[in-house]
Amino acid sequence: MVNKENTDIFKLMETILSEEQILIDIADRFSYSFDASFGEYLPDIVVQPKNKDEVSAIIKLANDYLIPVYPRGTATSLSGGSLAVEGGIMLDMSQFNHKLIIDQDNLLAIVSPSVITSEIHKRAESVGLFYPPDPSSSHVSTIGGNIMENSSGPKGLKYGTTKEYVIGLEIVTPTGEIMKTGGKTVKNVTGYDLTRLIVGSEGTLGIVTEATIRLIPKPQDKKTLIASFDHMIDSGKAITSILSNGILPSAMELMDNACIEAVENYSPSELPVEADAIIIIELDGHTDAVQEEILKCEAICYEHSALNVRVATDEVEREKIWRGRRMVSPAITQMGPTKISEDATVPRSKIPDMMKCLEEIKQKYNLNLVVFGHAGDGNLHPNIITDKRNQEEMGRVEDAVGEIFESAVNLGGTLSGEHGIGILKSPYMELELGEIGILMMKKIKEAWDPNNILNPGKIFPKEGQSKVVLR
Amino acid sequence: MVNKENTDIFKLMETILSEEQILIDIADRFSYSFDASFGEYLPDIVVQPKNKDEVSAIIKLANDYLIPVYPRGTATSLSGGSLAVEGGIMLDMSQFNHKLIIDQDNLLAIVSPSVITSEIHKRAESVGLFYPPDPSSSHVSTIGGNIMENSSGPKGLKYGTTKEYVIGLEIVTPTGEIMKTGGKTVKNVTGYDLTRLIVGSEGTLGIVTEATIRLIPKPQDKKTLIASFDHMIDSGKAITSILSNGILPSAMELMDNACIEAVENYSPSELPVEADAIIIIELDGHTDAVQEEILKCEAICYEHSALNVRVATDEVEREKIWRGRRMVSPAITQMGPTKISEDATVPRSKIPDMMKCLEEIKQKYNLNLVVFGHAGDGNLHPNIITDKRNQEEMGRVEDAVGEIFESAVNLGGTLSGEHGIGILKSPYMELELGEIGILMMKKIKEAWDPNNILNPGKIFPKEGQSKVVLR
Repeated sequence: MVNKENTDIFKLMETILSEEQILIDIADRFSYSFDASFGEYLPDIVVQPKNKDEVSAIIKLANDYLIPVYPRGTATSLSGGSLAVEGGIMLDMSQFNHKLIIDQDNLLAIVSPSVITSEIHKRAESVGLFYPPDPSSSHVSTIGGNIMENSSGPKGLKYGTTKEYVIGLEIVTPTGEIMKTGGKTVKNVTGYDLTRLIVGSEGTLGIVTEATIRLIPKPQDKKTLIASFDHMIDSGKAITSILSNGILPSAMELMDNACIEAVENYSPSELPVEADAIIIIELDGHTDAVQEEILKCEAICYEHSALNVRVATDEVEREKIWRGRRMVSPAITQMGPTKISEDATVPRSKIPDMMKCLEEIKQKYNLNLVVFGHAGDGNLHPNIITDKRNQEEMGRVEDAVGEIFESAVNLGGTLSGEHGIGILKSPYMELELGEIGILMMKKIKEAWDPNNILNPGKIFPKEGQSKVVLR
Repeated sequence: MVNKENTDIFKLMETILSEEQILIDIADRFSYSFDASFGEYLPDIVVQPKNKDEVSAIIKLANDYLIPVYPRGTATSLSGGSLAVEGGIMLDMSQFNHKLIIDQDNLLAIVSPSVITSEIHKRAESVGLFYPPDPSSSHVSTIGGNIMENSSGPKGLKYGTTKEYVIGLEIVTPTGEIMKTGGKTVKNVTGYDLTRLIVGSEGTLGIVTEATIRLIPKPQDKKTLIASFDHMIDSGKAITSILSNGILPSAMELMDNACIEAVENYSPSELPVEADAIIIIELDGHTDAVQEEILKCEAICYEHSALNVRVATDEVEREKIWRGRRMVSPAITQMGPTKISEDATVPRSKIPDMMKCLEEIKQKYNLNLVVFGHAGDGNLHPNIITDKRNQEEMGRVEDAVGEIFESAVNLGGTLSGEHGIGILKSPYMELELGEIGILMMKKIKEAWDPNNILNPGKIFPKEGQSKVVLR
């Protein structure tokens, strides 16, 4: 902890950074006390390094004085990834020197952690290339944060997650050493794959100071359809049938009735409020291929009792379909002061079972629960709308969240498909990983970070902790 | 070591396995003393477990008596992956209970380590699915071995390596515990990605007893062309130009003149012996797309001064083109008693530079060096044909190999694209990874395998070792 007894930390920081890179005023620190999940934790000091040497010096200092370090991009984490749960140093990486080089010959991008992900999208597409991972926060979140959380989004089904694109890293280790992993080649089996160990490690194994990212040629064309169903289970069957017919859409999004209603109440988007479920399917690739395949998708939806299927005939219609999907988050946010957004993920074929479990949990705990998500890869987003000031309801929310996790794991799924464990899901880690699984992860953390400096309090449950603590 | 002083290891093994699962005769052990690289190391005992509990008990026993364990599939490793360099227990996983389940709804295969990779190819394709990784050994190598070495092959360019398909593992840890990692969902961010840490760890971090593998829909069609060039550098430019024109072939193979001549001498395959280089390009996907793109590829090759381009018009012609490529390995093997097969990999745009370095090394050391490889992803295979009984020549080979590694790393590449480090490349690890990189890998190995039981003598260089020891 940085406190009055050791305010010389500020002075020590001044030996590394210039004064304007160090924030200690309460107002400044307060604005670094939250992220896109909930909970507020005030850091003792905020630092804004601009290069790897500064990061290295800060981490070494933190090791010398045993002060926790909390790395942070733009704090869009939905799992509390950047919260300073034990106070200490907030390492604001958003002010890091900006670097974004597109290497067209090698289909690569070299980026610094502070680059906003959508900048990579734009720059790559301007030269006919494509960076597929598209978390819904991509217009505000940094690539550094995306790498730490292994973010994905709708395109995960066809194109995989951030991990599938990061092939090289420069990191500062938990003890302050500068290390390179991987490189500029897709094929690389020189020793252990530290690159992929670090991607998704939620800031607990190293601080990314540069990344080498693989790009692919931009698909020539896209086609999109929206289909509505009387019964959720039919939409699940249609999704499975499309995939087993050899079609691999770039996105397959699902919205339940509560979700459709929320959008139509918030911002009418011509979604069918009478439907039990809608799915949005997008294909990309060669023009002839996507044209032929979208018609096949339409036919398969009707075979599985779709009420209505609409294929966008131009960009305006396509945009209108996606607008409805994009309205989901703001619509839900507007429904209540607190939104608990989960990302329990199940094997694709278990989506109908999971939807049934979610309906039962909603009834049992009498909660406002809506469900949408990336149905193609089984990645659902059950969202509970609540009010954190209502202690009694928060108790029910806590129990419901626990049952959501249990249901996902029982169906062969995982606690988290894309948001990360952070502070919210750590008590449930053992449910999925078992004692040995957690132990083997901890061995890595302890071997690399003997002083437990980097993002302590995340991923691993505290001794005896068996429940999320919502506050 | 198992020796006469502790032959009770045999008796202890009998408490775990039946007699026919334990081999101690010299003749039996001799047949387990080599792999597809070179060097012979006699194990003290060979065991053939059939299930995870037997593997677990063997590893626990090995920890109790501090005996090294060398896991082995069908020993097709080109880097000495399965060699029992310190004697001890050869863990023959090829007799493990056979399991190969295709889960069509979830586009998955559940496999045991003893399954031959081409069986997965066949079973997946029989239901319209596709498992892309295709090491040239796939008709004889096991999926367990492929996972341990992160094998790839020509399709790595478009489809990635084994790592991109393995999403869940059941392993026995280095201390004999049974652990599950990952699961049945492509998106999974619950804790560290142990699955991908273990894939490619060359048997040093765990023994795979089951794997969950992602499949994709089988592409509808394929098209193949072969192009010859007067100058290697033009073929490199054609490759880069195709990719930057938005075409992502499923394979782009390169052969140099020495390689072409070797094939034509061994088994005439209508390859143009006058060419400095040939490239084979294969596209897969929708019929219209591949038809259109193959014509574009043809035009791009001619734009870059191709001597001749031939597009296969039917399966017979396509097969003939690939036959020439497949003849490379047998043709080279026939050229001399010892073949040193490397897999130095460089960023794609550096292929012409790397080819120049290889030519210089060939001249400098007066060696029989031929080059082929997966040009699309920069993964070259310089092969030196020699005779290990010729000590003087082996000295030159050793120096040449060192220079090949140095050239690859200097060009921003890696020691190994797909064969692994094993025993042959470990002295060069520091060149690529630096001291910190090796240290961080070692920390993981030591944390997980405190007794250094699993595959000791692999990946990490011995203290003070600065050269490959060819023997």
